[in-house]
Amino acid sequence: MRLMEEMILREGTILPGGVLKVGSFLNQRIDPALLRAMGEEIARLFADCGVTKLLTIESSGIAIAASAAMAMDLPMVFAKKHRTSNVDGAVLSTVVHSFTHGMDYNAVVSRDYLTSEDCVLLVDDFLASGAALEGLARLADQAGARLAGAAVAIEKRFQGGGDALRDRGLRVESLAQIARMDGDEIVFTGSL
Amino acid sequence: MRLMEEMILREGTILPGGVLKVGSFLNQRIDPALLRAMGEEIARLFADCGVTKLLTIESSGIAIAASAAMAMDLPMVFAKKHRTSNVDGAVLSTVVHSFTHGMDYNAVVSRDYLTSEDCVLLVDDFLASGAALEGLARLADQAGARLAGAAVAIEKRFQGGGDALRDRGLRVESLAQIARMDGDEIVFTGSL
Repeated sequence: MRLMEEMILREGTILPGGVLKVGSFLNQRIDPALLRAMGEEIARLFADCGVTKLLTIESSGIAIAASAAMAMDLPMVFAKKHRTSNVDGAVLSTVVHSFTHGMDYNAVVSRDYLTSEDCVLLVDDFLASGAALEGLARLADQAGARLAGAAVAIEKRFQGGGDALRDRGLRVESLAQIARMDGDEIVFTGSL
Repeated sequence: MRLMEEMILREGTILPGGVLKVGSFLNQRIDPALLRAMGEEIARLFADCGVTKLLTIESSGIAIAASAAMAMDLPMVFAKKHRTSNVDGAVLSTVVHSFTHGMDYNAVVSRDYLTSEDCVLLVDDFLASGAALEGLARLADQAGARLAGAAVAIEKRFQGGGDALRDRGLRVESLAQIARMDGDEIVFTGSL
């Protein structure tokens, strides 16, 4: 999506350790035109796929999923992150490793909100290692739901998580796909 | 807002301790029609007030703020909750007490995303004690920003937080306002 690539080039900054900071437009301050465009593009990509529900995880995925949910006129659900394993049978739960924070957490959704009747579209802001999306896919699997695919705002393709998910048959669509980051330069796959 | 009151009566449940559970449509599973209507109503209520930015706090406020941000064509910012006080000068930070979880946390926003040029509309899902909104108001104050007011989805007016904010001159608008909860009965202020 051209608008996303432009925003990344104009406002994104690369921090030490290869972290792409996009807090000024995507995941702390959020631009309304970009937010609307992301929702509409996700709706276009997954139109006519039988999606019944969008599933994301707090916090940075919520605004994107909200925009897509309104564009698709479908309910969204967000998984909560719990530090403890103190969860009961009323919830679906799976352990996810956060590479950003160097720790594990439990991704938790009430069983009431994800069922075997659902065809789920996963939504998140970033796809790098794929750990968060894999966790969401496991929650959908625990519910007996089908997966329509995953939509992410930015994929750091060189980190391999997206392709690992594709290799397992999941349709993964990223609105901007970064092939590599060299120093201060960001190269998108489309611009290779 | 009639739709919000209808959803509360149809799907809300009162848990022990006077907790109103609205996870099925507002703060874990989110209904797209309600989400859109909330954004449009907040935009209508605060039209022509000079608002430049919406400020909420993770996680349950984000979807509502996202909908309102798109309806108002304004950027939104969400404060993050940190458990530690380990914050530096690059951020605005204030301690907020969570009555739901019986603990304190730091509400944190980058200084880059909230400035003295801003006229801020606070957004959240629930208003009970008012601790979260008061924390957001302090962050806006630290930035030197003006406050246009606060918009919340559900106010439990009998808990007094909203009126304390109003007494201090803040305009507070709630899309549904609960006068009291007696056993399983929910009474809105409009229906008194």
